[in-house]
Amino acid sequence: MKDIQTLLFANDAFYAAFAQQDLPAMTALWSSREPVACLHPGWPPLVGRETVLRSWASILEVSNTDITHEDPDAWREGVVGIVICNERLGGSLLTATNLFRLEEERWLLFHHQAGAVAAVPPPPPPRPGTLQ
Amino acid sequence: MKDIQTLLFANDAFYAAFAQQDLPAMTALWSSREPVACLHPGWPPLVGRETVLRSWASILEVSNTDITHEDPDAWREGVVGIVICNERLGGSLLTATNLFRLEEERWLLFHHQAGAVAAVPPPPPPRPGTLQ
Repeated sequence: MKDIQTLLFANDAFYAAFAQQDLPAMTALWSSREPVACLHPGWPPLVGRETVLRSWASILEVSNTDITHEDPDAWREGVVGIVICNERLGGSLLTATNLFRLEEERWLLFHHQAGAVAAVPPPPPPRPGTLQ
Repeated sequence: MKDIQTLLFANDAFYAAFAQQDLPAMTALWSSREPVACLHPGWPPLVGRETVLRSWASILEVSNTDITHEDPDAWREGVVGIVICNERLGGSLLTATNLFRLEEERWLLFHHQAGAVAAVPPPPPPRPGTLQ
């Protein structure tokens, strides 16, 4: 259970670094051990820590990092921690897979994929006179 | 090394079941152990074997399963096998993360995410008179 809490904490730290455009924090969150990979929406796959961190440097330079995440599902398979969650980035809803590797008792990111979710329409407004 | 070959074989089997609309084969490829999850492009996250297999039943019913995959990168982290690859589905280029769990010496799928890649434009035609 403590594992899952620390895994969720690492996942929170990833989105905090993203939202705060904090490249040093983002860099520290990613594993120094290869393989490391990242599948940004609309990009070809990036493989290798240096390539992945270069992509984050360019993403965090832009101003639209108004990202939040919600509804995480987290579990552990041996040394791998898996988190799937929704992301809200600007007006878009995305869904993500984040993979962490347990290294010296720290969960370090080694893979991230995010992709668009078709927006779920909001529920219809209540009809006048109906009970809520 | 043998691990990686069997992992790539399991990944090939996934795309063969997809392309051949073979629901029994697809069902056998997915782990019977929870957690199981699947993030189809444009869909909200699906969690749980039954929900995930219901989604595959509806996907394999439609006719556009003209899928191929290419450029897989595969590696192992303990009991987890990770494959990232490109997918070509109809005219679309997607990229995917496939996660397999080693269960009684078989790699069984427990997570899949696919998402669109912006098409890379083909290289421009050579100018007349230039050397190739």
